[in-house]
Amino acid sequence: MKQVSILGASGYSGAELVRIILRHPHLQIDKLFANSMAGTLFSDTFPEFRKRADVVMEKYAPELTIQSDIIFLALPSGEAMKLAPAMLEGGKVVIDLGGDFRLKSTAEYERYYKHTHSSPELLSAAHYSLADLPENEIQSATLIANPGCYPTSALLPLIPLLREMLISPQGIVINSLSGVSGAGRKADLSLSFCEVNESVKAYKAGEHQHIPEIRQALEKAAGAAVSFSFIPHLIPITRGIYTTIHANLASDVTEEKIHTALNLAYTASPFVHLTKQLPEIRAVQHTNRCDISFRLLPETRQVVLFSTIDNLVKGAAGQAIQNLNLRMGWDAALGLM
Amino acid sequence: MKQVSILGASGYSGAELVRIILRHPHLQIDKLFANSMAGTLFSDTFPEFRKRADVVMEKYAPELTIQSDIIFLALPSGEAMKLAPAMLEGGKVVIDLGGDFRLKSTAEYERYYKHTHSSPELLSAAHYSLADLPENEIQSATLIANPGCYPTSALLPLIPLLREMLISPQGIVINSLSGVSGAGRKADLSLSFCEVNESVKAYKAGEHQHIPEIRQALEKAAGAAVSFSFIPHLIPITRGIYTTIHANLASDVTEEKIHTALNLAYTASPFVHLTKQLPEIRAVQHTNRCDISFRLLPETRQVVLFSTIDNLVKGAAGQAIQNLNLRMGWDAALGLM
Amino acid sequence: MKQVSILGASGYSGAELVRIILRHPHLQIDKLFANSMAGTLFSDTFPEFRKRADVVMEKYAPELTIQSDIIFLALPSGEAMKLAPAMLEGGKVVIDLGGDFRLKSTAEYERYYKHTHSSPELLSAAHYSLADLPENEIQSATLIANPGCYPTSALLPLIPLLREMLISPQGIVINSLSGVSGAGRKADLSLSFCEVNESVKAYKAGEHQHIPEIRQALEKAAGAAVSFSFIPHLIPITRGIYTTIHANLASDVTEEKIHTALNLAYTASPFVHLTKQLPEIRAVQHTNRCDISFRLLPETRQVVLFSTIDNLVKGAAGQAIQNLNLRMGWDAALGLM
Amino acid sequence: MKQVSILGASGYSGAELVRIILRHPHLQIDKLFANSMAGTLFSDTFPEFRKRADVVMEKYAPELTIQSDIIFLALPSGEAMKLAPAMLEGGKVVIDLGGDFRLKSTAEYERYYKHTHSSPELLSAAHYSLADLPENEIQSATLIANPGCYPTSALLPLIPLLREMLISPQGIVINSLSGVSGAGRKADLSLSFCEVNESVKAYKAGEHQHIPEIRQALEKAAGAAVSFSFIPHLIPITRGIYTTIHANLASDVTEEKIHTALNLAYTASPFVHLTKQLPEIRAVQHTNRCDISFRLLPETRQVVLFSTIDNLVKGAAGQAIQNLNLRMGWDAALGLM
Repeated sequence: MKQVSILGASGYSGAELVRIILRHPHLQIDKLFANSMAGTLFSDTFPEFRKRADVVMEKYAPELTIQSDIIFLALPSGEAMKLAPAMLEGGKVVIDLGGDFRLKSTAEYERYYKHTHSSPELLSAAHYSLADLPENEIQSATLIANPGCYPTSALLPLIPLLREMLISPQGIVINSLSGVSGAGRKADLSLSFCEVNESVKAYKAGEHQHIPEIRQALEKAAGAAVSFSFIPHLIPITRGIYTTIHANLASDVTEEKIHTALNLAYTASPFVHLTKQLPEIRAVQHTNRCDISFRLLPETRQVVLFSTIDNLVKGAAGQAIQNLNLRMGWDAALGLM
Repeated sequence: MKQVSILGASGYSGAELVRIILRHPHLQIDKLFANSMAGTLFSDTFPEFRKRADVVMEKYAPELTIQSDIIFLALPSGEAMKLAPAMLEGGKVVIDLGGDFRLKSTAEYERYYKHTHSSPELLSAAHYSLADLPENEIQSATLIANPGCYPTSALLPLIPLLREMLISPQGIVINSLSGVSGAGRKADLSLSFCEVNESVKAYKAGEHQHIPEIRQALEKAAGAAVSFSFIPHLIPITRGIYTTIHANLASDVTEEKIHTALNLAYTASPFVHLTKQLPEIRAVQHTNRCDISFRLLPETRQVVLFSTIDNLVKGAAGQAIQNLNLRMGWDAALGLM
Repeated sequence: MKQVSILGASGYSGAELVRIILRHPHLQIDKLFANSMAGTLFSDTFPEFRKRADVVMEKYAPELTIQSDIIFLALPSGEAMKLAPAMLEGGKVVIDLGGDFRLKSTAEYERYYKHTHSSPELLSAAHYSLADLPENEIQSATLIANPGCYPTSALLPLIPLLREMLISPQGIVINSLSGVSGAGRKADLSLSFCEVNESVKAYKAGEHQHIPEIRQALEKAAGAAVSFSFIPHLIPITRGIYTTIHANLASDVTEEKIHTALNLAYTASPFVHLTKQLPEIRAVQHTNRCDISFRLLPETRQVVLFSTIDNLVKGAAGQAIQNLNLRMGWDAALGLM
Repeated sequence: MKQVSILGASGYSGAELVRIILRHPHLQIDKLFANSMAGTLFSDTFPEFRKRADVVMEKYAPELTIQSDIIFLALPSGEAMKLAPAMLEGGKVVIDLGGDFRLKSTAEYERYYKHTHSSPELLSAAHYSLADLPENEIQSATLIANPGCYPTSALLPLIPLLREMLISPQGIVINSLSGVSGAGRKADLSLSFCEVNESVKAYKAGEHQHIPEIRQALEKAAGAAVSFSFIPHLIPITRGIYTTIHANLASDVTEEKIHTALNLAYTASPFVHLTKQLPEIRAVQHTNRCDISFRLLPETRQVVLFSTIDNLVKGAAGQAIQNLNLRMGWDAALGLM
């Protein structure tokens, strides 16, 4: 049984981690940290956990995690980079659900996250892991950068097609719709019910901090420069991301080739499903799945890819546990079915 | 043309006042005040008013309202009582949409609002006016206390029946459901989309500040002590209140007597509709209406009354304008159809 | 391993049964029946089950269930009573999630369900079982009538107080709010998104078919005639019931006595939680829980009880499995945590 | 005062027409037709119109419209083409809110609408009118084809840029999100609350009947062949469309040129607003507005255009009245502010 601590337990991703850990056969909760709520019960903030996780949340201090084997960081941008170095020195496996260790380039980090990076040496040490396209390095990784929610939804359909050169690396258009929990759990007028309900708005067009993360992964897959746009939209649902992608087909690419490439890429994944019908968010809510479908548009010689995930599970806590399972050599689906 | 200023223009009730004033034939906006947003455009906060009310909101100062004939106060509890005295001395007609002047008893005010009242002498001077059951005093009132949203929905069906002694003043049960805009426009975690969506919760059971307001009006109608309970619930809609009331029938009361009493009470009102079908919130959204329906339960010898209003119109800005219309001797429906 | 068949698998309760059975250690799905969808995949109707329950739904015929030990009926009113007799003769354990076997009185059934009962002899044979207040008879029952969603939410808080005579059996007021899935999965204009969204409406006031079911259980608990009213309301959420109940306190009843009675009644239940904070629907969604809270109103000498359930789990499929667990002598919580 | 009849008054667009006509100074309702609801009150179907439009809906027969000057058709596809010829012979001005007369090509109509056209000669006679880009022909038109909701949201931002050759006519990507009322008022499982709420799905990718309508208008504006894709998505709101468009910039096009082109195109329109902030649906709900904003993406040399409309007003009834105003030589905004 491995002991697990969570920093940021009072957020939506933190709560989702607890939910999964409670049913995971090899994991046990050691400590839940939430500085602003220290001293209160986790189950008072999330009453669905009453009698299942009546744990007092604490203010984080390194010495409190002596018993922990694994630490999940579910913190606002800029905090993980300050805390992770000491954790790693202490021999913990650290999985960061935030953006602090996803980029290889310090300059890109600072441009999009708008503050300096205090541990740039960890940017190269960290292992960025899309859990459904795993790499061998994860087996020895001690600092795992868990992908962002939007990148997960965009990369899973795109990477196999770029790897196989079935689509052009130029002119990819990514439109995403996200539920409100993606913005975190906080008092913020722009997230209040009356401002969000019965409305839609695009935001951070061309400026979103997930843009360099998507670029880094797409270029790695293509082995070439990639040009794309990414436009996120906020929609009035609690959980879920819907991503619609247009890409230009390479010559002579047929529907069958696309189908085969996606199918082969995810044969081993219990979570990525290639569906014939266009996907719906409700089919993946509260699951670690990513549903992918596609259509060819002969007129514009494009493929349109559609993907759906639950931003808190596949887009955060679920993928983090899946990455931990891979790291530990366990079945990738433990705790996630 | 009368000049109107609004304090609290950046709130939902303030915006609703602007909406109505823009189509009112005898009213013109003089100034919009919103201390926290001073210097910004009203139409940046409420983009639906772009090109219709591109007014810079200001920080309130008495001298800025010299041109104003009428002042609407749409402020958090405790602020109106500090500002109203000087406005009244300055000869303005003041209409308060908040709770500062609704109660006659200073003790009741301080018990439920939990702060002292700085102008207790105005509690007796203020005229509380349910606009659909108007009293002559409104014609000379200078300080009008506009009813609360929950009280409006409960009092309109109950007052005619208490006046006619068709129901017992004992054991009235009032259950209300409110949309989220009733809590005001503010950054508050408990009002955020993810906390409210797909959920319901009762709150302030037995402690809500609208309880003494309901009591005062019911006892005036009954000419006797009244006992009742009031339980508000928050539901995931933006606008609207649904109130379901159980009252014990007096002896020999028939469906027809109830119908006649309600019908007669509102013959002159363009806004209160007695409906055969049980009411629905969507039929009154964005209107100044109150729909009322009822059913007799022979087994328990009760009448169940149902009422629906839009909390921002009939429950706030609409009724305030209707009260102003009555005060000025204009048609009660001006600007409200 | 017991083999289970479900009639009505294409409805929301049917799908919820499948979800629970898939994680139940002693149950296996034998057949899924859905006459109108016969020949199609269960997972095409409910894409969240893709790869987990890709079962072809069939048209029901008795001979197809030869392998089944247990049959769940999740059918529209009037169908179970025609099919159950032969199933019982065939030695199956039958659990009906509908209303056909809940009432002991044929007259009451026919008055509220508005058709004749074809198997009145089964009304007395059937065992009505609130799973959190279980009776010994369930261990030998072959036809189990699973309670309705509204009755479950009303009876769990009321029965302990009536049994202990802490409240008067007269003048109980039950107000319930239900999500839309309670109306079933069907093409019906009144359930369409645009008709339900951003609205609320009460319906079937004094006429709802759950009234005789509530009465029967309350009178059994009180050992006396009970008078009450029940008003259901439709609200714009998918799942969940919020029930607010007013009852008159017996003399000398204190908060502590109420607390003790409720606490004792549910000590053994893993699912009924007595909470200090007023309950919220979201805390019980997707769970088999019932959260109960209460407040005393000194002025009217009433207790107000609040309860929340997920109408598809505790109000249907979850309670049905819990009843099956009790029937088989298994742990009541198997498959439900 | 002109007399107006509406066919399809029991639909959402029909109701919106009634709402606008009631406040239009030159229009009066003659007859409301709704075959399936004939004999019932319009205000029973739409209780928000109680006391304002308590009109009995009738089954359509030509002789009932003798008094009508103007007829609005708000009917399912395929019905208008059968009824319009006789109306035109009878000297009526006919405005069709459906798709029967929008296309010039019979072949395109039959390909996308999937039935034959019974009055192909009217396809060339009908005048398709985007009311905010009006053409002189409307002044003498007797059969006006009102644009579809999606096309309106896509064409208003694109046409000025194509006319000025600021964007390439190749590779335009149009993603649209629509509220559920766009699918009409009907009993349909896929539109029921539980199927739509908390979800999103794309549909009819590459097959939507608005594709040829968009193409026809874009090619007219470009004076050249245009290639584009159009992907509609259903989202859980009642009203509103959000359209996000990617287009490739022509050489040397600056932000200022785009701004100027859009600004000039709509100087005369009271309804099309070019906004600096990205638009939100709630700002245009219940209005005849179209808000447009844009961002340049230097990396991909694209402009991203964002537009919002209320699908029932600007996307249906509001634009239809605006077209009528233009036809009659009245102020374009009559009844619409």
